[in-house]
Parts: sequence; structure tokens; C-alpha cells
Amino acid sequence: MKIGIIHGPNLNLLGQREKEIYGSSSFEDYLQSLKEKYKTVEFLFFQSNIEGELIDKIQEFSTRVDGLILNAAAYTHTSVGIGDAVRAIQTPVVEVHISNVFSREEFRHKSFIAPFAKGIIVGFGFQGYDLAIQSFLLK
Amino acid sequence: MKIGIIHGPNLNLLGQREKEIYGSSSFEDYLQSLKEKYKTVEFLFFQSNIEGELIDKIQEFSTRVDGLILNAAAYTHTSVGIGDAVRAIQTPVVEVHISNVFSREEFRHKSFIAPFAKGIIVGFGFQGYDLAIQSFLLK
Amino acid sequence: MKIGIIHGPNLNLLGQREKEIYGSSSFEDYLQSLKEKYKTVEFLFFQSNIEGELIDKIQEFSTRVDGLILNAAAYTHTSVGIGDAVRAIQTPVVEVHISNVFSREEFRHKSFIAPFAKGIIVGFGFQGYDLAIQSFLLK
Amino acid sequence: MKIGIIHGPNLNLLGQREKEIYGSSSFEDYLQSLKEKYKTVEFLFFQSNIEGELIDKIQEFSTRVDGLILNAAAYTHTSVGIGDAVRAIQTPVVEVHISNVFSREEFRHKSFIAPFAKGIIVGFGFQGYDLAIQSFLLK
Amino acid sequence: MKIGIIHGPNLNLLGQREKEIYGSSSFEDYLQSLKEKYKTVEFLFFQSNIEGELIDKIQEFSTRVDGLILNAAAYTHTSVGIGDAVRAIQTPVVEVHISNVFSREEFRHKSFIAPFAKGIIVGFGFQGYDLAIQSFLLK
Amino acid sequence: MKIGIIHGPNLNLLGQREKEIYGSSSFEDYLQSLKEKYKTVEFLFFQSNIEGELIDKIQEFSTRVDGLILNAAAYTHTSVGIGDAVRAIQTPVVEVHISNVFSREEFRHKSFIAPFAKGIIVGFGFQGYDLAIQSFLLK
Amino acid sequence: MKIGIIHGPNLNLLGQREKEIYGSSSFEDYLQSLKEKYKTVEFLFFQSNIEGELIDKIQEFSTRVDGLILNAAAYTHTSVGIGDAVRAIQTPVVEVHISNVFSREEFRHKSFIAPFAKGIIVGFGFQGYDLAIQSFLLK
Amino acid sequence: MKIGIIHGPNLNLLGQREKEIYGSSSFEDYLQSLKEKYKTVEFLFFQSNIEGELIDKIQEFSTRVDGLILNAAAYTHTSVGIGDAVRAIQTPVVEVHISNVFSREEFRHKSFIAPFAKGIIVGFGFQGYDLAIQSFLLK
Amino acid sequence: MKIGIIHGPNLNLLGQREKEIYGSSSFEDYLQSLKEKYKTVEFLFFQSNIEGELIDKIQEFSTRVDGLILNAAAYTHTSVGIGDAVRAIQTPVVEVHISNVFSREEFRHKSFIAPFAKGIIVGFGFQGYDLAIQSFLLK
Amino acid sequence: MKIGIIHGPNLNLLGQREKEIYGSSSFEDYLQSLKEKYKTVEFLFFQSNIEGELIDKIQEFSTRVDGLILNAAAYTHTSVGIGDAVRAIQTPVVEVHISNVFSREEFRHKSFIAPFAKGIIVGFGFQGYDLAIQSFLLK
Amino acid sequence: MKIGIIHGPNLNLLGQREKEIYGSSSFEDYLQSLKEKYKTVEFLFFQSNIEGELIDKIQEFSTRVDGLILNAAAYTHTSVGIGDAVRAIQTPVVEVHISNVFSREEFRHKSFIAPFAKGIIVGFGFQGYDLAIQSFLLK
Amino acid sequence: MKIGIIHGPNLNLLGQREKEIYGSSSFEDYLQSLKEKYKTVEFLFFQSNIEGELIDKIQEFSTRVDGLILNAAAYTHTSVGIGDAVRAIQTPVVEVHISNVFSREEFRHKSFIAPFAKGIIVGFGFQGYDLAIQSFLLK
Repeated sequence: MKIGIIHGPNLNLLGQREKEIYGSSSFEDYLQSLKEKYKTVEFLFFQSNIEGELIDKIQEFSTRVDGLILNAAAYTHTSVGIGDAVRAIQTPVVEVHISNVFSREEFRHKSFIAPFAKGIIVGFGFQGYDLAIQSFLLK
Repeated sequence: MKIGIIHGPNLNLLGQREKEIYGSSSFEDYLQSLKEKYKTVEFLFFQSNIEGELIDKIQEFSTRVDGLILNAAAYTHTSVGIGDAVRAIQTPVVEVHISNVFSREEFRHKSFIAPFAKGIIVGFGFQGYDLAIQSFLLK
Repeated sequence: MKIGIIHGPNLNLLGQREKEIYGSSSFEDYLQSLKEKYKTVEFLFFQSNIEGELIDKIQEFSTRVDGLILNAAAYTHTSVGIGDAVRAIQTPVVEVHISNVFSREEFRHKSFIAPFAKGIIVGFGFQGYDLAIQSFLLK
Repeated sequence: MKIGIIHGPNLNLLGQREKEIYGSSSFEDYLQSLKEKYKTVEFLFFQSNIEGELIDKIQEFSTRVDGLILNAAAYTHTSVGIGDAVRAIQTPVVEVHISNVFSREEFRHKSFIAPFAKGIIVGFGFQGYDLAIQSFLLK
Repeated sequence: MKIGIIHGPNLNLLGQREKEIYGSSSFEDYLQSLKEKYKTVEFLFFQSNIEGELIDKIQEFSTRVDGLILNAAAYTHTSVGIGDAVRAIQTPVVEVHISNVFSREEFRHKSFIAPFAKGIIVGFGFQGYDLAIQSFLLK
Repeated sequence: MKIGIIHGPNLNLLGQREKEIYGSSSFEDYLQSLKEKYKTVEFLFFQSNIEGELIDKIQEFSTRVDGLILNAAAYTHTSVGIGDAVRAIQTPVVEVHISNVFSREEFRHKSFIAPFAKGIIVGFGFQGYDLAIQSFLLK
Repeated sequence: MKIGIIHGPNLNLLGQREKEIYGSSSFEDYLQSLKEKYKTVEFLFFQSNIEGELIDKIQEFSTRVDGLILNAAAYTHTSVGIGDAVRAIQTPVVEVHISNVFSREEFRHKSFIAPFAKGIIVGFGFQGYDLAIQSFLLK
Repeated sequence: MKIGIIHGPNLNLLGQREKEIYGSSSFEDYLQSLKEKYKTVEFLFFQSNIEGELIDKIQEFSTRVDGLILNAAAYTHTSVGIGDAVRAIQTPVVEVHISNVFSREEFRHKSFIAPFAKGIIVGFGFQGYDLAIQSFLLK
Repeated sequence: MKIGIIHGPNLNLLGQREKEIYGSSSFEDYLQSLKEKYKTVEFLFFQSNIEGELIDKIQEFSTRVDGLILNAAAYTHTSVGIGDAVRAIQTPVVEVHISNVFSREEFRHKSFIAPFAKGIIVGFGFQGYDLAIQSFLLK
Repeated sequence: MKIGIIHGPNLNLLGQREKEIYGSSSFEDYLQSLKEKYKTVEFLFFQSNIEGELIDKIQEFSTRVDGLILNAAAYTHTSVGIGDAVRAIQTPVVEVHISNVFSREEFRHKSFIAPFAKGIIVGFGFQGYDLAIQSFLLK
Repeated sequence: MKIGIIHGPNLNLLGQREKEIYGSSSFEDYLQSLKEKYKTVEFLFFQSNIEGELIDKIQEFSTRVDGLILNAAAYTHTSVGIGDAVRAIQTPVVEVHISNVFSREEFRHKSFIAPFAKGIIVGFGFQGYDLAIQSFLLK
Repeated sequence: MKIGIIHGPNLNLLGQREKEIYGSSSFEDYLQSLKEKYKTVEFLFFQSNIEGELIDKIQEFSTRVDGLILNAAAYTHTSVGIGDAVRAIQTPVVEVHISNVFSREEFRHKSFIAPFAKGIIVGFGFQGYDLAIQSFLLK
């Protein structure tokens, strides 16, 4: 099984910025631990701050993986284009948010991706990625 | 470990009504399979169509379990009181929705519970409960 | 033919309260006159102030009657759960309101039940129930 | 007893257009059946696509009939003028809609006529007219 | 003089939950102190998490007391039915809130009860009940 | 000097309907008194319930009169087309309303005509027409 | 007959500022010409930039004049207090605006005074005051 | 091939009014040039200021032409009835606007016709009609 | 103990205007009766129609009294500045309204003062001041 | 004549994704057919999923072509920046949408580009590009 | 060069109130330091809690200074009248806010003054005044 | 001292496009004059039309400069991601706009960056950058 993980803007700062919200370990370390836990899964990972590069990668990964985990961060709330990309592809997409977006600003409650996602996992910190992987394995 | 599962209005009809949305197996059967999968977990289960009974049970379970899985169904979108109950207790609550509420009517996108939940899992069908349990085990 | 009539909150006060809006005769007396008029129809009647008991009864009656007349009163305007119940069952439901809700407060113009009803009858006083019965007989 | 029936825009196409919403029989045929069923009632009928002609006819019929059945179709949702006409006259008006407007577009949920109507009957197909006639006979 | 006090959802947790908002003494203790202070007043007290039971009790108390003190908590902001009950009865109702709801979430600024209340007392902690009693004695 | 007066829907009922709002004398009688008062002014008068006929007449009168007094009644609040006609012509238009529309329903506070009018006179009863005439004579 | 004229903020600049909107002659000159035209009318005039002084003066003038002409300028659109003052007094008040407020910013379309005014005259330049005086003389 | 062109309110003034928006040549002249350019196409043309006459003509033309070009002008933004007519017929309808409605008032951005149109052409001046004709020829 | 009472616009008319809302006795008489009832309390009283003078006095009184009773009347609903003053001072402020503002116009439901008040007392007529005094004595 | 065509996000998938909306042929094939049809026109084509690259290209093409055809897809509805680019350049821009955006989600009805476009062509499928080209040739 | 500084409501408390927002030094001290820094500039300073006095002073200063620095505090967000005064005068006005109003309540994000200001400086504490002075010197 | 300046979309056209809004000199020339004026300051400058490249650069510059001047142009009003980047870094950011965005379209009044900025400077033309630099030097 192949799983793609795509990260949106500012998530490259995980572990550095706003630690009270996002925790203090880097995502790279966590991804390493996931690889060790799920040895039969091959992971592809991509991060960009550029909306259109995320669209490019969603299109590209859709032909290479069995499932896609997408945390589009800030673009979640404003990007019709990323939502359109998720709708356009056949590969199931699980939307993940590290923090509980529903206890933050009103504009973070809206997702243009969610209506087209296989499922949405919010607020579990990094463990949301673990749960997302399990959702593909259960399938 | 003890986990409580609380179900809101009309979820007693699962497997009978609107099968295109909710699937055709009963929740009782699924719960049985969960019990077999997670033998070390003790499950408490409660369903009611009455908002206040759900509040009663959230309060009661909060003193008896290590984690609470709450699918308040229709009351999710209108009940300040259930949200208040979740906020009032110390026990972590995972909010689960079987269907993808974000691809349904606008009024189902709003949750009075989510801001106070440990995490939210939406759209995975019955497997959302499995993921919720795992979220407690990972912890 | 069996017809169920379900009454929501404060309708137990009919004939006592706010007579300028709802008239001064009790619903029980009126129901008696309906039974005499429609001798071939068997009537089931239920009133509760509790939202969830109305949901319980809508589910239960749905398996016992040919048609349901539902005046959910105040819950009409706020209850996603009662709307879900009406949507979930197969039995046709006629929504009735005694007063003309459209000439009252703005929040009474919204109904969560109407989209799933077979028909809606508003403003005819008690005679709305008579018309609702006829709608089942015409069918 | 004399009853007037006034039909708004596009209702002249009944039986021809959008049969999945409005059925496939013409209103003229149905009106004929009503005349046979209610032999003691004299019917006046008028249809126009022109808002102001509907206002003219509401004014005129109001002096000639005992009750008015008004299906203003599209103008229901936008015409302050038809609402004003209904408010201005003494003759009781029953507002009828063939389809369930509450399960259609949001803008069809608003009626400028309803606040001034004796009653509103929605969603029963052509039988709504039968119920409206009965509401005058019960009176 | 007889005064009824009715408490809505989660107020059974007073003194236990969220002490920074509601204080740390139980309402039962406070009620005892009120009974000692106002020896000529007979108190009836009722708490429920169930909206409809609150309506039941408002109706019942209305025939047994001279004044009603109502803190409907979360239902204040969403319950058309409780507002209707208060409007329907003749007994004067004083709406009380322990915390200052106007410095909390926007949705807590709306009350369906206030328009029909004799008066509203907000933000004085438990002493709001003392003031409400005095408002009946002054009368 | 030639002045045109154009009346919108239901104003043909003036003196007959809703006398508490519009008074009990007919407009024809009042117009007669205006003709006697302003002997040097030639009056053209037109009333229709049909929006498009009002547009026709605004266009036509615009080439025949020095000033236009327009009371479009209900169409004031909804007719983009009448507003466009007033904007399109060169003849100055005074908008008149008999009742004080600002103390009535919210939807009567909006006028599609006012932005293009030379002036607006509201709430003076029939005397608003007298004032409108004077506004042309002062010019 | 005594008529009071009250002017709100920035109207002391008339004839000096924004001449394309308000014209280039001062109001004092115009008032002088009104006094000469209406010799039997005694005029009281007051201008202030202070909202509360306008309220003071509305109260005071109300006991001294037969009619009040009020151009509250900017306060028209925001002052609940001036609206309350106009509602509180018995003296009839005519609201006047020199420019056509309905062709300017949206927030100038709202008036807190209009619902309580005897009449409203908008957009006629200084001549609006002449018309307002005539409205009192016609009475 | 037969093509119908239907024009709404105030378009009879084209070439006369507001030339900075609509240009200074009359539509009749332009239509003549179209006839010369497209010799194999038979044109039907109708203009009315009356909403209902436009509905009449849409219905009538729908049985006589292969394609309909509709510029409903002001009614575009408010007429549910014209939208319903376009939805009801089978003949393809191309909606045309001469000016760029999206650079004008907010209320001109809404069209009740567009959702049911084969296509929409906006802002090209009279040439929009030429393009609309070509769209039928391409088909 | 020293208590300040500050009154906003038009409250100088109490007992004179709109007696059906505010009663017919003057506030001065009532204040006299309060002084006799609470002999150990020293009262400071101030009324102004001017928003800024109310701010001046709130600032000044805040250094001279133990508690402030503020009925800002119309300014309650629009004055960010009075709200800022109440927030800025240390002295506890009780907001009082004589009438039940929640059963009046929508715009009277909003208070810029309430979020910063020690408590809010609404709808008890003049007795609201008595209750406010008691709230300081209880403290 | 030189014409530029710029395509926004996900349009590289045309012919592959959501064929019920966008058809099943690729845009490259269609562009080829346009080149054959319009032999005297030189075409420049650019597609990107990146908003800023579209802005870059609009700026660049504006100096190289006589007309620009812009289908910004999802960015149409959210990109102030692309709208600003279109406003900033002198080259005429025709906005094209393949599907009828007005019969899709509400958020697709808004265009930040349209106010600054020479014209807008919506809903004709690929033929919208043909019409856009003709609009430049007619000019 | 002469520069006027005008301060709105509650700014007389600077250095005393809410020091976490506004700092703890008084504005008078700061103004003294500005006078020492900018020896060639003559300063006029005015503070009032009264909206209309601010309007008076804006008008008066406008004829005496080369530039005006206006911090209208709370009135910024509600005063149409102060905005009108700034628009009416010729003297350039720089709007200054000490705190970052955009990180505070929503209602503080709106300014009626900003559209007519030469420039706006927000969030720099007292140094905003220094920058405003420099903006006049750069000119 | 090192200061970074980051420019958003279309600002590369400064001096070329819309000169009535942005002036006719290029920003490069202006930057050169700033370098000459502030010789002790080292400047880094970056412009991109791509939202994500702006985020990249905000992150990168934040580790290299003492202060950041950010004019995100169109992205200011829509980019949650740029706002998140500004919030995430420690370096103080001054938001600058050349034109007075508050006198332009409504959607330009909203900034996702402002709540996290050290200060905001709007409307001073290029001199806003000079003021922003001074704000860092004052610090």
C-alpha cells in the first residue's frame, strides 16, 4: 500500500512556531516513527507554501498512491481550487488538521475540501495522521 | 480501559432508515465486532432521542469512563446544552459522525460540541468509531 | 384506515392559553368530534412537551398508522431531529399549524419538517386537522 | 356558494411542463372534476402570466365570490403588490401550492401572500384545491 | 407567598464544574440560606436537563406559585418552546442568569424567554436569585 | 405647466380599503380639488396595477409633461424596471408615498426609484401630492 | 404659527463645504428669505454639532412651537436618542434632507427619526424647508 | 433556422437613453444588419415592458423557434416567473446583456434566468446578439 | 456607602412621556423615596442628553462612589464610548433598564455596556433601581 | 491578430475528470481545431495551477497579444489579484467558463474578474472559446 | 508649521486605565517630548468626550493648522458626523490609533473617518503620533 | 539594522499601471532614494505574484532581518496563509498600503495580516515605506 501525505502553507515550521498550538516536535521525526510503525506502507511526502503546487501534487499523487492524507492548512479555508482537485481525482482523500480548528477563528470552520473527502480527522495533534493511515488499512 | 459511546436522535434506526447514507447493518452488530476486536476495553453504550437524557448520560459516564465517543446526531447542530455538558466534564470526548456532514445541508456544518472535543472524526461510516477507540489507545 | 396525531410543546394548553390565537375549545373535544365524523378512521393521539418523546412516537406510530398528522409547535422551527425522523420514516406526514405562523414572528416561518412532509396546512384553526384527514382519504 | 380560483405565471403549462414536479394532467380537466364533485359551488377561474392582471382579478373577484383560492406561483415569492391586494380585500383567500415549495429553492420559502391568507395549503398536488374548497365549506 | 425556582441543563453541576465562571458552592446550600433569610416564603425547586420537562414544570408551577424564577441555562438561547410556555402562563416570571451572558459567546446574548419575562437579572452570581425574590416582595 | 401623476398597484382602491392607513376619501375627488387650486397646471393621470404599463406611461409622459409625480406603491420596493425608467428619462420625477413607509414593514423602506428622483415626499397623506406640485412651481 | 428648525452636525458649514452636494448659498440667507415669504410664521432656529444638545432642543422647542422641521444630518442615521426624543414629544416633526440621501452611501438610507415623523422630505435642496413649512400651513 | 429575440423593459429606448452605457444606435437598425448578415436565419422579435407578456412570448416562441435570445433587462434580476418559463420550455435560451452588468450595481449581478440558460453572454454591446446567433449556428 | 445614578437621554422626561411604557411618576419622586428607604446610603444623581457628558460623569463618579447605577437609555445600544468608560473604571457598574428592552425593537437588544457591567437588571420599572441598590448592599 | 488563452487550476485535466460537467475531449485537441478554423490568428496558450503564475502571464501576454481569453477556473471566485491584473492591463480580456457556473454552487456565481472584462461568455462548453475569438474579430 | 491633535472619548485616561493596552505614561508627557523633538512645529491639542465638540474642533482647527492628527477613539467606529467633518474640510487629516484595533473586537475594525483621511497609522502606541508628524514634514 | 521589504501581486507594475491610484514613479527608484536616506540600514527586497513565494520569503527574511515591511497587495484581503506566516514568526512586521484601501471596494477593508502586525500604515503613497522604516528606528 502506498499513501501520500501533502502539507500546506507554514506546516514546514511545525515544531518551531506556535508550540502551544502545534507541539514542539518536527513532523519529519513523526513521519519517521510512522514509517517504522507501518512497515508495509510506502509513504510519499510533499510540502509547499504554494497553492498551485499543492494542486499539481494532488493530481500527480492521485495516480501513484492508494490513499492521500491532505492537510492544506490555511488553504483549506479559502481554496476552491484545491477542493476542485480533490473532487476531480478518484483516489480517496482524508483531510487532517492537527489543531482543533473548530475552537479557533470562525473562518477556520469552513473547509472547501471536506465535502469531497472520504473522511475528516481534526484535533488529535500528530496522531491524526496515524488514525488516517489506519482508516486506509481498515478499508 | 473503559470507553462510553453515546448516540443521539434517530440513530436507533441505523441499518433500517436511509441506507444510502448510513449503510444497512445495525450498530449493535458493529458494536459487538468492536468488543471482539478490543478485548481489553470495556464498553458502555447509550442511545436516546431526548436531548436532556444525553446530557444526563454525558455527566454520568464522565465519572465512569476514560474516554467518551459522542455522536449527538441532529442535536450536534442545535444543542448549546450538550456542548455545555462536554465543556463541563473532564473526560476527553471524541465527536464522531457516520456520514460526511460537510457534504450535506449547510446547517449540519455547525457543531456546538466540536470546540470542546478532544478530536472530531467525520465521514468514515461505522469505522469512525474504530478510529475513535484507537485515538484513546494511542494516548 | 389508521391516522396518528402528534402534538408538540404547550399544545396541551389549547383552549386555556392565548385564546385570541388558538381559540377557546380544547383539542380533546375537537378530536372527539372528528372521531364521530370519520367513523371508519381509527385515531392514535399523543402529546408531549419533550422533543425526544415526539421523535420516539413518530418512529413508533410510523409502523402502526397509514398517515401521520404532526403539529410539532415550537419544535417545528428548531428541531433538526424531528425533521430527520420525518425524513427517515416511510409513512406520509402532514404538517399542521393551527395559527397562521407566517403572520407571526420571523423565526416561526422556518420549518425543519416541511421539506419532508407530504403536505403542509397552516392557519385554519382546528379545521386544519379535518383537512389533513381528508387529504389521506382522497389519496 | 361562489369560489374564485386565480392562477399565476406558467400555470397555464400544467400537464405539459416539468411533469415530475407538477404531474401530467391539465388543470382544466381537474377543474372539471371538481365542478362535478361540488355541484352546489359555482366556480370562477382566471389565469394570467401578468402580475398586475392578477391584482386586477383579485380585486374584481373579491366582490363576486365567497372565497378565493390563489396560487400565484412565482409571484408568490416576490410580489408585494399581490400581497397588498389580498390584505386590502375582505374576501377570505386560501393560498395553494401544488408542489412542496419548502423542499425547493430557498427563495420559494418566502411568501408575500401568506401573512394575509385565511390559510395555506402546500404540497398536495391538485388535491390542494379540493382541500381549499372544503375549507370554505367547513366554514 | 410561594416562589418557584426552575433550573435548566447542567445547573445540577453548580459548584462542581467551571468554578471560574459559576463559583464553587452548590446551589442547594445557597437555596438553604435563602430559605432561612426569607422565612415567610415557601420555595419550590426543580432542575432538569430535559427541555420538555422544564416546559411541563413551568406549566405546573404556574398554577401553584405567585412568582417563578427561571434560569433555563443553555435552553434560554434556543428554546422557542420554553419561551412559548412563559408567554402562555399568567404567573410572572423573572429570568435569572448567574454569569454575565453578555460577556460570553454571541449566541448566549439571545433569549427566547426575555421578551415575555416580568424582568431579567444577569451576572450577579447566586445573588441574582436573592434580587429576584426581592422583586416579588416589592411587588 | 403640465404635470403627470402615475399611480401603482392597489391605489385604485384608495378611499375603499384600509382606511386607517390611507384615509377614506377617493383620490379622484382629491385630484379634482388640486385642479381647482392649481388652475394654470394641466394634469395627466394614470393608474395601473401592471408594472410594465407603469413603465410604458413613465416613458410616454416623460415626453409630454414638465414634471412627473410617481407613487409606484408596492412596485417601489421591488421594481428595478421602474427605477430604470425613471433613470432613463430627462423629466424630473418626484416620488410620493401617502403613508409613512418607514413606520411599516422593513421591505417598504427600500425604494428602487428614490436614487433617481428629484425628490421624495413621504407620509403626508394626500397632501404629499400638493407639496410635490409646489416643488415644481418653486423650480 | 410658530415653527422650529433644528439643524444637526456640519450643517453650520452649508454654503462653504462640498458645494456640489449642498449648494453655495448659506442657510442663514435662505432662512431670511423664508421669513420674508411667510410673514405670519415665527421661526425659531437652532444648530448644534452635539447630539445631546439637539435632543435638549427638540424637547424644549416641542413646548414652544406648532411644528418642528428637523434635519439631523449625520445623526439621522445613528441616533436612537434623537429618534426617541421625536417619538416622545407631541409636536409634529417633519424630517428634511437637503441632498438625496438615497443616492448616497448605503448607511445614509437608514433613519432612526423617520418612523416617528409626520412626514419626510428628501432631495429638494433648500426648497425642502419651504415645502415643510407649507405642510404645516396646509394642515 | 428560426431564432427568436425577446427584449425586456426599457430596451425600447435603446439608442435614445443613457448612451454612455448602451450606445447611440437603435436596436432596430442593428437587427436589420443581422438579418442581412445571416440570410438563412429567420428572426422573430418582441419587446415589452410587461413581465407577464415576456412570459407569454417565451412560451409562444418556444414552439416556433430553434433558439431563443433573451435580454430580460431589469426583470433578469427579480423575475422568478421568467426564470420558471425558461426552465419549463425545451428550446435552448441564450441570455444576453448589452452592458457589463457585473461592473454595475450589486443587484444586477443576480440572474434568475442564468441557471436555466444554454449560455450567457455579457458586456459585448450589440455584438452579444451576433455571438448568440453564432452559438446556435455552431451547434 | 455612596452610590451614583447616571441617566441618559430623554430620561428627564420620565413621568411625562410615553406613560404606557415608563409609568407616570417622575424619577425625582422615586429617588426621594429611595433616599428615605436607604438612609445610610448617600446618593449622587446625574442626567444628561449628551453622550460625552455621561462619559465625563462616569469617569468622575468612579472616583467618588462605591457603586454606579447606569441607565444610558438610547446610548446603551450605540455608544462604544460609554462602554469603554465602564470598562476603563474600577468601580462596579449595574446597568438598569426600566422597560423590558427585549420585548421592543431589535436594535434595543444590543448593549455596549453589558459586557463590562457587574450585573444587568431589566424590565422591573423603577424598582430596578431598588434591586440595583440591594445588589451593592448584599456585596 | 494574436490571441492569448490562459487557463487556471485543474483545467489541465479537461477531458479526463468530471466528464459530465466538462465533456470528454481534451482542450489541446479543441485548440488545434480552432487553429485550423482561424488560420490568420496566432494563438498563445498557457495553463497553470498557480495563481501567481497566471498573474505573471496575464501581465506578460498583455504586451504581446491583441486580445486575451481568460478562464481562471476556481481562482475566478476568490482571486483579487487576478482581477487586479486584468484591471491593470490595457489589452481587452474576455472571461470564459465552460460550464454554466450559475447553475452550480453559490460561491461560483461571484467573479473578481468580470467587472474588468470586455465581456463574459458562460456555459457554452468549448464553443465559448470560439465565440470569444469571434468577439475579437468582430471588433 | 502648525499641527493640531484631537483626542476622542476616554483618551483623557491614558496612562491611568487599561495599561496593558495603552501603556502607563500620560499623553501630556509624551506630547511634551514631541514638542521638544519638533521645535519648529507648533502644536494645538484638544480632548473631549463629546462627539459634537470634536466636530466643532475639527472645523475650527481646519482653518488654523497645516495638518490634523485625529484619534477619535470610540467615535471612530460609529460617528458619521465626524467622518462628514473630515470630508468637509480641506486640511489633511491623519487618523491615528494607539492600539492595534484590528486585533480587537470586530466593531473596532470599521472607521467612518478612514475613507476621507490622508493616511491611517495604527498600532504603534504613542509613536504613531510621531510618525503622523513626520508624514506632514515629508510632504 | 536590516529591514526586509516584501511586495505582493501586481506591485511589479508600480509606475506603469493605474497611475491615478499608485503614482507614476517606479518603486525601484523610490527604494534607491530610501537607501540613500537611510545609509545605516541594509535593505532586502522581494516581489512576487505568487502567494506561496511570499510565505516562503516571510519565513526566510524573518531569520535575517530586524524588521519586515509587508505590502501583500491583493493577498492582504484573502490570504489566511500569509496571515499565519506573520503570526508564526517573531520578527516585527509593519503592514503598508500605498493607496487608501478604506476608500476603495468593501473587500479591500479586510486584512488577514493586520491582527498580527506590529503596526499598519495606509494611504501615504510611497512615503508609507519611509514611515515604516522610521517606526523601526524609533523602536
